[in-house]
Parts: sequence; C-alpha cells; structure tokens
Amino acid sequence: MTRRASIIGGNGYTGGELLRLLLNHPDIEVGEVTSRSLADRPIHHAHPNLRGCLNQSFMSPDEVTPCDVLFLCMPHGEASTTIDRWQSIAPLVVDLSADFRLRSADDYQSWYGVPHPSPDRLGTAVYGLPEVTRPQLAQARLISGVGCNATAMTLALLPLARAGLIERVIADIKVGSSEGGAAVNAGSHHPVRSRAVRTYSPSGHRHCAEVLQSLGEMDLDCTVSAIEMVRGVLCTAHVQPKERVDHKTLWRLYREAYHNEPFVRIVADRAGPNRLPDPRVVVGSNFADVGFTIDERSGRIIALAAIDNLVKGAAGTAIQAMNIALGLDETAGLTSPGLHPA
Amino acid sequence: MTRRASIIGGNGYTGGELLRLLLNHPDIEVGEVTSRSLADRPIHHAHPNLRGCLNQSFMSPDEVTPCDVLFLCMPHGEASTTIDRWQSIAPLVVDLSADFRLRSADDYQSWYGVPHPSPDRLGTAVYGLPEVTRPQLAQARLISGVGCNATAMTLALLPLARAGLIERVIADIKVGSSEGGAAVNAGSHHPVRSRAVRTYSPSGHRHCAEVLQSLGEMDLDCTVSAIEMVRGVLCTAHVQPKERVDHKTLWRLYREAYHNEPFVRIVADRAGPNRLPDPRVVVGSNFADVGFTIDERSGRIIALAAIDNLVKGAAGTAIQAMNIALGLDETAGLTSPGLHPA
Amino acid sequence: MTRRASIIGGNGYTGGELLRLLLNHPDIEVGEVTSRSLADRPIHHAHPNLRGCLNQSFMSPDEVTPCDVLFLCMPHGEASTTIDRWQSIAPLVVDLSADFRLRSADDYQSWYGVPHPSPDRLGTAVYGLPEVTRPQLAQARLISGVGCNATAMTLALLPLARAGLIERVIADIKVGSSEGGAAVNAGSHHPVRSRAVRTYSPSGHRHCAEVLQSLGEMDLDCTVSAIEMVRGVLCTAHVQPKERVDHKTLWRLYREAYHNEPFVRIVADRAGPNRLPDPRVVVGSNFADVGFTIDERSGRIIALAAIDNLVKGAAGTAIQAMNIALGLDETAGLTSPGLHPA
Amino acid sequence: MTRRASIIGGNGYTGGELLRLLLNHPDIEVGEVTSRSLADRPIHHAHPNLRGCLNQSFMSPDEVTPCDVLFLCMPHGEASTTIDRWQSIAPLVVDLSADFRLRSADDYQSWYGVPHPSPDRLGTAVYGLPEVTRPQLAQARLISGVGCNATAMTLALLPLARAGLIERVIADIKVGSSEGGAAVNAGSHHPVRSRAVRTYSPSGHRHCAEVLQSLGEMDLDCTVSAIEMVRGVLCTAHVQPKERVDHKTLWRLYREAYHNEPFVRIVADRAGPNRLPDPRVVVGSNFADVGFTIDERSGRIIALAAIDNLVKGAAGTAIQAMNIALGLDETAGLTSPGLHPA
Repeated sequence: MTRRASIIGGNGYTGGELLRLLLNHPDIEVGEVTSRSLADRPIHHAHPNLRGCLNQSFMSPDEVTPCDVLFLCMPHGEASTTIDRWQSIAPLVVDLSADFRLRSADDYQSWYGVPHPSPDRLGTAVYGLPEVTRPQLAQARLISGVGCNATAMTLALLPLARAGLIERVIADIKVGSSEGGAAVNAGSHHPVRSRAVRTYSPSGHRHCAEVLQSLGEMDLDCTVSAIEMVRGVLCTAHVQPKERVDHKTLWRLYREAYHNEPFVRIVADRAGPNRLPDPRVVVGSNFADVGFTIDERSGRIIALAAIDNLVKGAAGTAIQAMNIALGLDETAGLTSPGLHPA
Repeated sequence: MTRRASIIGGNGYTGGELLRLLLNHPDIEVGEVTSRSLADRPIHHAHPNLRGCLNQSFMSPDEVTPCDVLFLCMPHGEASTTIDRWQSIAPLVVDLSADFRLRSADDYQSWYGVPHPSPDRLGTAVYGLPEVTRPQLAQARLISGVGCNATAMTLALLPLARAGLIERVIADIKVGSSEGGAAVNAGSHHPVRSRAVRTYSPSGHRHCAEVLQSLGEMDLDCTVSAIEMVRGVLCTAHVQPKERVDHKTLWRLYREAYHNEPFVRIVADRAGPNRLPDPRVVVGSNFADVGFTIDERSGRIIALAAIDNLVKGAAGTAIQAMNIALGLDETAGLTSPGLHPA
Repeated sequence: MTRRASIIGGNGYTGGELLRLLLNHPDIEVGEVTSRSLADRPIHHAHPNLRGCLNQSFMSPDEVTPCDVLFLCMPHGEASTTIDRWQSIAPLVVDLSADFRLRSADDYQSWYGVPHPSPDRLGTAVYGLPEVTRPQLAQARLISGVGCNATAMTLALLPLARAGLIERVIADIKVGSSEGGAAVNAGSHHPVRSRAVRTYSPSGHRHCAEVLQSLGEMDLDCTVSAIEMVRGVLCTAHVQPKERVDHKTLWRLYREAYHNEPFVRIVADRAGPNRLPDPRVVVGSNFADVGFTIDERSGRIIALAAIDNLVKGAAGTAIQAMNIALGLDETAGLTSPGLHPA
Repeated sequence: MTRRASIIGGNGYTGGELLRLLLNHPDIEVGEVTSRSLADRPIHHAHPNLRGCLNQSFMSPDEVTPCDVLFLCMPHGEASTTIDRWQSIAPLVVDLSADFRLRSADDYQSWYGVPHPSPDRLGTAVYGLPEVTRPQLAQARLISGVGCNATAMTLALLPLARAGLIERVIADIKVGSSEGGAAVNAGSHHPVRSRAVRTYSPSGHRHCAEVLQSLGEMDLDCTVSAIEMVRGVLCTAHVQPKERVDHKTLWRLYREAYHNEPFVRIVADRAGPNRLPDPRVVVGSNFADVGFTIDERSGRIIALAAIDNLVKGAAGTAIQAMNIALGLDETAGLTSPGLHPA
C-alpha cells in the first residue's frame, strides 16, 4: 500500500533532499509540495536536479490537503505555533525544524533563549534518531527531526556513554556550507566562503542540548567550524575517559552498540587513507561512519562520526524514522551508497 | 529473473561506479569483482563508499566464473586482445574501454596511432549510446562503452546534425579530475590540480572520432580543459549553422530528438541561475542536460550538454545499454536524480 | 618624491586590491579611502587581509581632500556623472569602472543600452592597457581601467590581430567568482556556486567592445562561464586564421609583440603540466601568461591568456598605467610573482 | 650591502616559496638553486609562477659555491648528515627540515624513533621562531626552520603558557594539501583528496615536541586533519585553564606577548565573519593571526592561530630569522599582506 507524503516548505535544502529520496522510495508517493514564495513555480526552479522527475509545481501551504505523512520544513519557531493545523491534516507529522527536539520546556528556554510556544506538545513528540529512540518511534504521531551536528556527536559518543566511560568531551565539528540553508547571506558569498575555515560557533552550540538529552548529562562542549565543502559533518570528539581502555575494548563497545544498525558503519582500520570516518565518503547517503582511536600517551579517546548533514543529519533520518512509524522496512528508500570519488 | 553481473578490473572508478549502481538495480545481482592488484582485499579498500554494502573481496581475474553479463573495466588496449576469453564466460559483454568504440579499423589506427589488435571483432560490437544505437543494442552480444567527452558532444549536437544544420563546430569541453582515472600522476597532485584550468588537449581529442561516427562527417574540433571539479563534463559547442535558425526552431529540433529519451533533459530556459546545463546538477545521476542558445548578432548556435562522466559518460550508460540488451526496463537501476546542492 | 593616492569606493574587491598593492609601492603613500556604507569603520572590516597594515578608517566620499592620484572604484555609471568633482581633486584620475572604456558614445550606447552621461569626456580618457596604449598613457589625466575579460582576450589576440591574421574568433572565457564583486546575490551563494560551471554570458559580452576598439573590427564573439575558482580568467580563443601559419611563425609574432612587455610571459611549451597558460599560476600577480597552439588538422589557432582578474584585469593594470602617467618605473609595486601552489 | 643566498633542494614547495620571497627582498640576491633531479632545467619547470623572474637553471648540489646564506630544503634526515659541508660553504645556514629543531638528542630519538645522526650539533642550532628565540637568533650560525603545525600551536598558546595558565590542551589542527610536499602519493590524488576531511594524525604528532620545547612541559596533544585547501593551518587549541579568566585578561596577555611582534595580529573581535583567525586571510603572507574566546559555561579557553604553512610556517619565518641573524630589518622582504578574496 503506497502512502502519500506531502511537504510544507519544500523549497529549501531539506525539502529538496526529502523529495530526492522519496522519489525513489518504494512505498511512498510524493503528494503536495508547498512554498509560499514559489507557489505555482515548477519544483525544479528550486531543485534543478529534479527537473523532469516531478511534474507538479509548488503550491501555497494554505491549500494543502490531507495525506498520510506530512513533513514540515519551516524556519525554526514556526512549526510549534502551527502544529495543530498540520496534525489535523496527517496522522503522522515529521517536523525537521528544531521546535520539538527537546522534551523539556526548560531546556528549550535555556538553549534557545525564548519560551517554547506550545510546551504541552513537547511530551508527545519523539526525537527521530532511530539509534536512540527506535522503540518510541514505532508509536509516534509527531516526530522531531534531528540536528545534524547533534547526530554526529551522538553517534560518535553513544557507545562510550552507554558504557559510562565519559569523563569529559570536547567535540571539534567541521561542517559544509549547506548547513546554513538556502538563504543567501554575507558569509555565504562564494569569494569569501570558498576555502574559509570559519569558527562560527566556538562554544555553546545548541545542538549540545540534544546530545545531552540522548546520552545523559555529561561535561560536553563543542566548537563548530565551517570548512570548504558543501555537504558533510565530521565530529571529532576528544574524550577523556573515566578509566583507560584499549582498542579492543572500544571495538567491542562500538560493535555492541551498532552491529544491528543498518546505517552505522564502524570505520576504525589500522591503516589506509580511509581508515577513519570522512564525510566525503558518505555524501548523498544515509550512512553514518563512526570510528575511534586512542592516544597511547594520554589515554584520550578520539571518537569520530561522519555524516551527510542533509541526509543522515536531516532528510534521510527523517525518512528512516517515518519508515519505523509506518511499519515499513526501515531502510526503504535509503539504500543508495555515497558517491566516490566526488 | 535476476541476472548475475561480474566485473573485470573492478578497482577503478568505472568499476566502483558500476558497483554503486548495480547494487540498487532491481534485476541484477552483483557476481564477481576482479582486481589483480587487490585480489583478496575487501572491495571497500578501493571503494570506501561501499563499505558494508558488499561482503565479498576482489578476486583474481584468472578465477572468474560464468555469469550473465560481464563488464570489462580494463586499460585501453587490453580488452581487444582478450575478448575471446570474456565472451566465452558471458553471453553479454560490455567493454568500458575505448577498444571497440570505432567500427572502422582504419579510423582506430588513425586516431589511436596503432593497428587494432582484433579488427574482425569491430563489426560485431555495438556502440553503447542508446540515444544513437538503441535498435542495434537490443540484439547486441558485445557492447562498447562510450567516451565521456564524446557523449557530451554527441548529445549536444545530435538534433542539429540530424537536421543537417551544422556547417562547422568547435567544442570547448570542461572536465573534472575523475576523468583521469584512479592512478596517481604528477598532474593529479592536489596542490597543483586544485583550481587548475589546464588545457590538456587543445585539439584533436580522440573522442571526436566517436562523434563523427555517430553523427556523420563534419568540420569538428574540440579543446578539453581540466577544471576544479571531480565529476562532470560540460560541452559548449560553438556551432556555425548552414542557415540562420531561431530559438523556436531549436526547441522543436531538440524536442523531436529527445522527447522520448528517459535520460535527456532539455535545459534552455529564458532566465535563472540554472537556465543552461551545468554538470553540478547531474552529478551522481544518469541524466544528460542538453541546452542551447543563439548569438543574435552572428547566428552562432551555442549547444551545451552536461553529464556526470562516471555515470552517463561511462557506467550509467553501460547499464542503460545492458538493460536494453537484456530486455529489461531501460531505466532500471538508474532513476536516482543528482545531488543538489553538492 | 612620494605621491599620495586616494581611493573612492574602497570597500569592494578592486579597492582592496589597490590597497594591497599600493601598500608595497615604493613611490606611493596611501591617502584617503572612502566608503559611504562603511564610513568610520576600520578598513580591515572589509579587507581582513590588511588588518594591521593600515591604521586609518574608511571616510565618507564627501570629505575627501586633494591628492596626487585618485582611483575611482564605483559602480558602473557613477563615475561618468561625477567626474568633474574627482578631476578637481586630483591631477590624475583612474576610473576602474566601465564608464570611460569606450571612446565612442555610439559604441557605449550600443553595448551598454543607455546613452553615455558625459560623452564629451570620452575623448579625453585613455584606455589603461599599457600593452595597447602606452604612448598615450604618458600624457593622460584621466585613465580608464580595463575589463578583465577584455584584457585576457586582447592580450591573447593582439599579436595575431597586428599581423592581420584573424578571419574569425570565438573566445571561451572561464572566470572565478570574484569577478562578480563583493555584493551577495542568489547565484553567489556558496552551496550553489561551489563547483558550478555556469554559462552566464553565452554571447554578446560587453567586454567584446573593448577588444574591438583595441584590436580593430573583426568577427569576434565570446562565451563566458563561471567555474570553481575565486580569482582568475582564462581566455581560450579559437581563431580561424586568414592563412595557415606554423608554430614557429606564431612564436615570432608573439615574441615581437611582447618581448619588451614587463608583465606578459609567453607560455607555449612543448610539454609539461604548465605548458599553456593557467590562471592559477598568476594569482596575486600582475602577469599575463599568453600562449598558443595549432590544431594541425584544421589550422585553427588556439590562443590563450591567463590573468588574475583583480590584478592584471583591474587594480594591477590600473597601477601600471598610473606608473606610466606619473613617469615612474612602470613595474613599481607590481613585481611580486603569483603564489604556487595555492 | 646585498647578500647572496643560495638554496639546496630548491625544487620543492619550501624552496619555491623562499625564491618567491627572496626575489623581492631588498637586501638579498638569489644565488644558486640546486636540484639533483632537475639539474639544468629552468627553475620555472618546478615553479611556474616564477617564469620570467629568474633566468637561471637548477644546478647540481655538488657544484654549489660559497655564499652568504645557505637555505637547506632537503628531506628530513639529510641535512644532519651533511651539515659540515654546508657550513663550510656559508657563514649562515638555515635548515628547513626537522633535523635541528629539537635541542635534545633524547627528545629527537623519542619523537622521531631513530638516534640523531649528529647530536653534537644540536646545541649550536637555534630554533628559528623569532617570537620565541629572537635574542639567540642574532648570534646564530645555524638556524633551524620551524614545523608549521608547531608554529600555529606555539603562537596560539604562548601568552597563556607564559602566564602559567595552562592546565591541559587539546589542539585540533586543520591543514591544507601543500603541507604534504611536492611528491605525489595515493592520498594526494585530486579525486580523493578534494574535499577530504582526513584525520591523518589523530594523536602524537611530532610537532608537539617543538611546542613543548618552546613553551615548557605541559599536558598537550593534538589531532591533525587535512581539509580542502592548499595552503593554511588553523590551530584551534582547547585549553583547560588552571583558573578561570575573563576576556579582558586574555586581551591583556595576548597584547603583552605580541604588541611588538611585527607579524602577529590579534584577531578576537566581538562579531563579524572575520572575528577569529582564518588561514584564508593570511595566505601568501608572513602574518600569524592569533585569537581567543572563552566558553562561558566551562571556562574553557579556545585559542586559535592561523598561518600560511609555506610562509609563516616555513619559508617566511626562515627569512625572518635570517634577517635577524644578518642584522637586517626583521621585516625585509616579508611585508606583503595576504590575498583577499582568494
């Protein structure tokens, strides 16, 4: 039985990525795609890669009709004030903004600096990272998408956190320019963004809140730098462990955590140019490559995770979560590997 | 009925790309993948994007067993001296080298500078560009892959050539670094290749021979430059027409030529950043974006075609040709759009 | 004797480049630098590379005081309506916009689509390309800067034009993103501009007018594509000669034209990765690398020129012209070679 | 009085960079440039940016004649076995390899894994980082060049180390491809190196030894990643301070350390795209941009330094040290700012 999926705010990068993936999903038919600014314009106006793949045009969000799944790709702060309307249209809503990621209204206020507009809904939303919340997703009616940097941090650290090994973490995160979205700004101007190494968030990034919610409280901070790439996140987490562990133990912990995960690959080889995770290898795919190594002098663990921010860090994980909630094969529509070289 | 496809010389870029695409082909099972230098090493050693997607290792080409389709990804000049062996193993052989692209042994000698090693086979091979040779492919037992630059030139010019409009063509071709293959050389060293604009073939490129064979004799030359990208070919053909034509006529000619082609999209808008073909839009996909414009002063036609050299310019078109020869849906395994942005 | 040079509109890329070069000019002292939008802000706000090199801030253009040389870096169309004021302030004015490039008001109207605002001044301005107008520059009071694409085309073709060899030219021009200036636009957004190959001017580019003015009327057109680089222009001119010439003759013609030129280097080697001009080799320098090759089949000449659009295509040539007009060593302040690798 | 400087092993990237800078040095004349593999070939064969700037060819190192300064750009391990010969040729030798960076033979053995070939010389060499060893450089006869990553770490941390503030440091270092030198290898192949984020040294990088020698023993480790750029190093040092400090104190410490340093700029603004150091801003220049910020939650100090690895991280600092040893203006030949945009 094919389900019909529509997208609110489909003209941005996550909307385009949802479309790219859903077009090849065996159980999904693409329904309506809205954009207030591009209403009545062909979809390939915003997503030139989809030219010829979709006959429809963008429609106004005011005209959207009922469907089986509704993806919300709106600016942060909008979904939470209009959520009633969307839930009245579809039995399953997946919101890709940051509005429903945190369960606690206090945490939201603390990290986002404003009160949450609909705190009563926070309890009903399920954080859509299957590696953390798979059981709850099966029953979800409202799923929150994930933060891309949060996803990389969470997947790098999850096996260590479960083992209670983490004393302290500093994560250095490198991201591409698509993380900033489709809107132009002075910092995204090609002549100055090209080959920039811009430390745009030296500390206190909001995505930390999601990691702490998923893994439990810990001494965690991160520094985020924009580098020359379009897609991709690499989290390099410098972990001070509570006790010294060896390489074999780490292999065991990561294997235990991930051996049943369809989209997490452990990359911790002894040698070779691809012995540790590199986002270029997963671009276009839903894979998260996770790896680790140990500084033999100090015992510091270097835990890494590489994802495509628009796929495993946004649209891909949203579809994976949808698959679970709809009772479909969890990997449906998501099996394409990344491009190499690219 | 699933067919079994094996690959000889699967450690290079076209081999990796065949694997990436065949893994999601609904009617194909990946059989053996050979590499003499990497025998017994896991396939992800050469293709890190496929880690976890394939359990097998490379095997020696000496041990390959019968299969339904055999793809040959060997250096130019090798397939033609060993073709008997491969045809004894599989009823359908697709050679991605340049060995069987030209029908005429004289042309081969003229463009490649050496006599063809097995001229008797030239008549039996079918040039595998469906837009040109679809009828013959249905019966083919030996299919030749296409040259990537040739494909871009042929698809840009085909509607004009069929209409007998071409007086003279100079094609300026821009290519990415993956066109040079997986072997390291002084010119591919990142510090000197990065942002290079290297005119590596100012004139007389061999791929012209394929274009002339497909479209008929004409006054054609091309200049090929390597620019900063990994995948992609843009052919910008400067066409002096035999008579002046208008934009509407060009639309008609291109539409007639391509309206039934599943992988050719006409991109000739009046405005917008994507109004003409750009290889970045087709990266990872089997699409060829073809467009045109006219210099109103001189009447010169600028005909463009953008492809991913590893997909529509190599592995994708090879699979498309295989689909036709096997009687499968021509688009099977090839429906993923490109990545945007990327 | 040190001369004082001021800059009107110094917050853009040509203004920044003038500053970078003038700071190391032995005979020039940097005077005032104006910017209406950044008045009173430190200059490194716009030009972070100059932090610590200049103590002054931007000032309002209304407050600029007399100086020896005034560079105008204003949007096209502004210098020509305010030129009286600037000439009253400085005995030598160098305008880097397009306003005074064409001598003929008719040509201006034809290529720019509007009447020239001060046609009487057109006769007094000298086009500031020393390789073409050196004698006139010595007496100039008003110098026009050059178009970057025009400079590349002119220098590639000048020896052939002087020899009366050109039957017809199509120039394929590849440019970097800095050519678009410092203002953000939808097309300059890094995620979509990165690795783009965008044919933004398929024909009829305005810079052709400058080439025709410098070299004489000819059958000339150009196609301009934006590629992945920040600085650089490569002109690849496909020249149909009036008669067939050999390589030796071309060497003679180019040597005759350029052997006394301090900033033109002939790059036409027989082999090697750098045998033909490549803009990456001249980035940051005032050199123009000029080369050529012949298609032996057709006799077509491929003439190339590579420049840094912000230096030889703008600020560097402006300073070179100023040096001549001031009677200084023509190369003063301009002797730094490009960066390699970079 | 002009001094004559020659270069042994001048065909690599540091050799090319020395030449680029020395050509515009007011007090230096370029003498001989040797290369065993390229002997008798023109220098622009290796350094295409210098075409036309130097008339000479590479010569064999066996034929080098006496000069005032000799720069050694040989593979690690070679200078230390041949140092007698070079010191007999020139009263001042500057070795850009790692051979004489560490004063202690034990440290050398510990970090490089082999005994030092000429331990008796270690005491006479002066580590050539003027910000640390300026007084000793004035008398030096043998100067050791610096490690590029070491330079970035040292300059980021020096004010904190002098203040005794450092409890523990983890430095995340991002580097460009030129750091690997001019020799081709599998990892430097453009299709796989482009946009790579490759953690090539997760811990225990040798350059740490230089930092500890310069700043004193501390709990220090670093992780080095190769990213998409050609030139540039950004060190992001995560510093756990012994006591909590505020922003104003950091400003004071950095200003005290660097206000007299001609090539260190403090970049620690409150806002703006360039508020913290970014290597793209210093490319081509001898500047080190140093900055800092504080994580208000944890008190962690994020200390950053950005350099061009080939200039401030190699050839530029070597010339700066030479200037001091020769009694010249310390900034001679090094005053060009970086390129922006580029």
